[in-house]
Amino acid sequence: MQLNLQTDYALRVLMALAAGDRQSSVEQIARQYGISRNHLAKVAQKLQGEGFVVTFRGRGGGMRLARPAEQIVVGDVIRRFENLDSFVACFAGGGCAVDGSCGLKPALGGALAAFLDHLDGYRLSDLVPDRPAFLERLLAEPAVA
Amino acid sequence: MQLNLQTDYALRVLMALAAGDRQSSVEQIARQYGISRNHLAKVAQKLQGEGFVVTFRGRGGGMRLARPAEQIVVGDVIRRFENLDSFVACFAGGGCAVDGSCGLKPALGGALAAFLDHLDGYRLSDLVPDRPAFLERLLAEPAVA
Repeated sequence: MQLNLQTDYALRVLMALAAGDRQSSVEQIARQYGISRNHLAKVAQKLQGEGFVVTFRGRGGGMRLARPAEQIVVGDVIRRFENLDSFVACFAGGGCAVDGSCGLKPALGGALAAFLDHLDGYRLSDLVPDRPAFLERLLAEPAVA
Repeated sequence: MQLNLQTDYALRVLMALAAGDRQSSVEQIARQYGISRNHLAKVAQKLQGEGFVVTFRGRGGGMRLARPAEQIVVGDVIRRFENLDSFVACFAGGGCAVDGSCGLKPALGGALAAFLDHLDGYRLSDLVPDRPAFLERLLAEPAVA
């Protein structure tokens, strides 16, 4: 049980944009975290599609948050990036022999709801409580290419 | 984000043993669910190692619950089978650029605690509330070999 890498990267992009409070590019953010530019480009595309960021093309292009960090609920980001419908095979109607007589599905469904409820208590701004300190670390450690 | 297949199988074995209220073999349980015998053998070994089942070797061998289903907490099974220390890279100290200034780790840690807390409210017996109905389904659908 692991958070998908795409979700991890999505949260990192959003935190970088929140801390910087300005436009930034996939290249810049990938370099700052020392992670794959190609992976991050796909994540940025999905972040735009889901309405979390707006992007600008061309010279000086990049992306910024679509709305203030105080208005982005962390649980919503997780919901959009994780496919929780396949958390366990039976969620997707995998044809388990005991489907219908088994209490596992509602137990796990409730546990996932508790997981998301907890994250609904956080806004993106809560993840970067000290923006200057966050930015300082982000900018201080450019990864080796 | 998915439950590991091993955890899914562990829960299925425990439920089958709880419903049957008797000894059963890896072969029988694998056939009943229509899942891999080899996978299940590894799961059974871990279930024994973690003290959830006791096994008997030889002719007529098999396994049974180490204690009544009412005394097995579902959250404990998940904790023993899932490696939640690697739920996200930074949990394992992955050397993220912003480690120390980022609020994601405690937010996700709290969400996982809420997930487990919920499952601590269930005993194995709660997952098979109607044992005869569960057994009927389990025994009615032998998988094609």
